[in-house]
Amino acid sequence: MDLAGGLPGVRLHTGALHASTSDAALTSMTLLNEIAGRFPDAVSFAAGRPYEGFYDVAGLGRHLDTFERHLRDEVGLDPEAVRRTFFQYGRTKGFIHHLIARHLEIDEQLTVEAESVLVTTGCQEAMVLVLRALRTDARDVVFAAYPAYVGFLGATRLVDMPVRSVREGPDGIDVADLEGKIQQARAEGLRPRACYVVPDFANPSGATMPAADRRRLLDLAERENVLLLEDNPYSLFHPGGERLPTLKSLDTGQRVVYFGSFAKTAFAGARVGYVVADQSVVDGGLFADELAKLKSMLTLNTSSVAQAVIGGILLENGCSMERATVREAQVYRGNLRAVLTALEEQFGAGSPMAGSGVSWNTPRGGMFAVVTLPFRADDAMLEYSASRFGVLWTPMHHFYAGDGGFHQIRLSFSVLTPEQIRLGIDRLAALVADHT
Amino acid sequence: MDLAGGLPGVRLHTGALHASTSDAALTSMTLLNEIAGRFPDAVSFAAGRPYEGFYDVAGLGRHLDTFERHLRDEVGLDPEAVRRTFFQYGRTKGFIHHLIARHLEIDEQLTVEAESVLVTTGCQEAMVLVLRALRTDARDVVFAAYPAYVGFLGATRLVDMPVRSVREGPDGIDVADLEGKIQQARAEGLRPRACYVVPDFANPSGATMPAADRRRLLDLAERENVLLLEDNPYSLFHPGGERLPTLKSLDTGQRVVYFGSFAKTAFAGARVGYVVADQSVVDGGLFADELAKLKSMLTLNTSSVAQAVIGGILLENGCSMERATVREAQVYRGNLRAVLTALEEQFGAGSPMAGSGVSWNTPRGGMFAVVTLPFRADDAMLEYSASRFGVLWTPMHHFYAGDGGFHQIRLSFSVLTPEQIRLGIDRLAALVADHT
Repeated sequence: MDLAGGLPGVRLHTGALHASTSDAALTSMTLLNEIAGRFPDAVSFAAGRPYEGFYDVAGLGRHLDTFERHLRDEVGLDPEAVRRTFFQYGRTKGFIHHLIARHLEIDEQLTVEAESVLVTTGCQEAMVLVLRALRTDARDVVFAAYPAYVGFLGATRLVDMPVRSVREGPDGIDVADLEGKIQQARAEGLRPRACYVVPDFANPSGATMPAADRRRLLDLAERENVLLLEDNPYSLFHPGGERLPTLKSLDTGQRVVYFGSFAKTAFAGARVGYVVADQSVVDGGLFADELAKLKSMLTLNTSSVAQAVIGGILLENGCSMERATVREAQVYRGNLRAVLTALEEQFGAGSPMAGSGVSWNTPRGGMFAVVTLPFRADDAMLEYSASRFGVLWTPMHHFYAGDGGFHQIRLSFSVLTPEQIRLGIDRLAALVADHT
Repeated sequence: MDLAGGLPGVRLHTGALHASTSDAALTSMTLLNEIAGRFPDAVSFAAGRPYEGFYDVAGLGRHLDTFERHLRDEVGLDPEAVRRTFFQYGRTKGFIHHLIARHLEIDEQLTVEAESVLVTTGCQEAMVLVLRALRTDARDVVFAAYPAYVGFLGATRLVDMPVRSVREGPDGIDVADLEGKIQQARAEGLRPRACYVVPDFANPSGATMPAADRRRLLDLAERENVLLLEDNPYSLFHPGGERLPTLKSLDTGQRVVYFGSFAKTAFAGARVGYVVADQSVVDGGLFADELAKLKSMLTLNTSSVAQAVIGGILLENGCSMERATVREAQVYRGNLRAVLTALEEQFGAGSPMAGSGVSWNTPRGGMFAVVTLPFRADDAMLEYSASRFGVLWTPMHHFYAGDGGFHQIRLSFSVLTPEQIRLGIDRLAALVADHT
C-alpha cells in the first residue's frame, strides 16, 4: 500500500491490490451493467437472470415450515436439535445433502452418495473451492471451452489459476482440440488438472454436446489423467423428449466433479449450490471432505436459513426441481421459439434482410442464443444499439477474455415476453440495416 | 493428480491438493471436535458457540415479514422490486448496509458511510476478501497477536499469505513487539500490509486493549504504513459502565478495516457478517468496492433470505444489537462470574489447591477465559481429561499454530449454566490434583 500525495488518510493504489480486482474479464461485467442501467426502457437481451413472474414472498415462510416439519417428523430431531439446525454454526458440508442426492436421482437419473455432496454458497463458491484445491503452485492449469461462463473465469482469477482456452463448435467443446492443448501444456512443463464444461445449453453459447462427444471427453480425461468439471445449471430447461445423460452419469471412474445450482430452478438470491466430489483421497476420505476443509476457512457453512428454504422447496416438490419449474420451463421454451422465429422472419431465407450476413445458432433449450453479425459488435456498438435503437445484448468477446467473438452477440431471453422478443429482434434488424 | 495403484477410479493424493487442506492449524479443529464428539456427557468448556436458549424458529417468518414491510413502507419499493430483492441475484455489496451503518452508530458510536459497508457470508468471507485483496505476491505479509483466532489463521492459509506472530500480554497485543516485527519483516524484503487485532474480549484469550494502547497502535500503523484489521464480534458482551472506543472510532486516517459479525448477536447459522472498508482507492472508489469485485467471483452476493432475516432482527430492535441481546449478555456476564468464582474457590489464595501453580486471567467480558496449568495441556491431556474426569476444554497451543501455549487451556463458557460451570471447574481441579 502506497501513500499518494500528502492527502490525509490511506489511499490504496490498485497496483497494491490483487490483480483480479483490475482483470478485464470481471470489470467488463460492471461496465455492461452500467450501460444497461442507463437505458432502462430498451428491450434487454442482456440480463442473464431467471424469470421472476412466479416468485412469491409469502412462500418463503411456508418453505421454512415445510423444512421444520421434515426435521421433526421425518428426520426425527427433537425441538432443541431442530432449533440448533436453524440457528447454530452447522455441518460444513451442509444439511440438505440427502435431499440433493434424491433430486439428482429423480431429475438426472444420477446416483450419488449424499456424503459426496458439499452444499455451497451458490455454485460460484463451489468452483472457487475446487480450483483452490487443485491449484498447488504456478504449474497447475485448467482448460475451458471458449466462449466461457464469466463466473468460471472469475473463479480462476481469484486463485491465480491460468486457464487455457479450447475451441468450441456448434456441438460444444472440441475434444480433439482439448487433447492437443493438454499435450501442449504438458510439453511446456505445466500440470493439466481439469477441464470445465457445460454440456447442456451452455452459457453463453447455448450449445449442447452430443452423447458420443460426452463419451469421447470422458475417455480423453481418463487417458490424460485430468478431471472434468461439469457445470449443469440449465439441463431442466430442455425441449422435451429423450434427454442426454450428464457426464457424471456416464462417469464410471470418478473423473467428473459435478457442479449444481438452485439459482435457475429455485431462486438465485438464496445462494445455494453444491458440488458432487466423489473422488477418493489417498489416506483420506472423499474429495468432498477436502473441499469442506477449505470451505471451513471461507464461509464455515452455507446459510442455514437459505438451505432450509431450498430444502422446503425440494420437499414440496418430491425433490424434483423439474416439477418445481414446470411453469418457468414453459416460459423459456416459448421464448426460445419466439427468438428463433423472429430471427428467421427478419434475417432468414426469403426475408427482406436475407443475405445481409446475419446468422445464428439454434439451441435446443436453456436461456441463451448467439447471433453473428456482419460488423464488429463490441461495447461501443452496444451503447449505439441501446441509445439509437433501444435494444440491449451482450457482446460475446467478454466470454473470450477479450480474445475473440467480436462479431457475435448473446441474446438472453429468460426475462422477456414473446412480444418484447419480437420488438427487440425488430430493433436488432434496424441496427443491422443501419450497418449494411 | 496422481493415480495410485491399479484401482479403478480417480484417487487424489493430498500432495496434489492445496497445502491448506493438510494445514495443522485447521485440521486440528476437526480433531478437537472429534474428541468432543466421543464424550457427549462431559462438561464442555470447548464449544465456542453462542448461547441458544432464546432462539425461536417461529421468529424467522416474523423477521422476514418485518423486512418485507420495511422495503414496502419505508424504502418505498413496489411489489415487483420487493420480490426481486428477495429472489434475484442482488447487489454484490448487499442490501442491509444502511441498517448496519445505523447499528454501528447506535451500538458503537461509530459513524460510517453505508457505501463503505460490504455485507458478507459471515465475517469469515470478509477476512478472506481483505487478505485476498492485499496479497499481490509472495512478499506481502500480515501480523497477528498470538494466540490468534483460528478463523483468521485459516483465511491466511487459503490465500497463501504468511502470518508473523506478535506477542500478546494481559492487555492484548504488545505494540512495541509489533513495531519490531514489522521492521524485521521489512528488513527481510517483505511488505508488511496489515495487523489483525481483536481489541475487545479476544478469542481465545479474553484480553482487552486499554485505550492508550489503542491510540499507540493507530500511531504505529500510520508511521509504518500498514492497515489494522479490527475484528469485533464480542464488544456488546461487556461488563457495563463506560465502554472503550473501537479502533475504528478512533481512526481519523482510514487506517482501520473493521470486521463485524452477527454470529454472536443474531445467530451464527445465518452467515451474515460485514466489513467496513472506507479507504479510498487511487483512480477508483472505496476499498469496499474493490472487495466487492472479489466477492462477485466468490459468492456473488450474500444470501438474500439470510440478509432479510438479519435485517428484520435489526429493524425489530431499532437497529440496536445490544438491545437484541440483552438476555444473552446477562447469561454471559453471569457465566463469566461463575467461572472466576469457581476458579478462585478451587485454586485461589486460601483454597485447598492454593500454590498448585494454577493461574488464570480475569476477562472483563466476552465468552472466554484462559487458565495456565502446571503441566502440559495438549490434545492427549484433553482426551485424558475427558475420559477420566469428564471435562472438555481447548488446548491453547492450537491458537499459536503449534508454536506455544502448551501449558494453557481456553475455557469457553457461553453455552453452560452456572451449575455446569461449577461442576466443570471441580472436575478440572480433580485433573490438576491428579497431576500435582
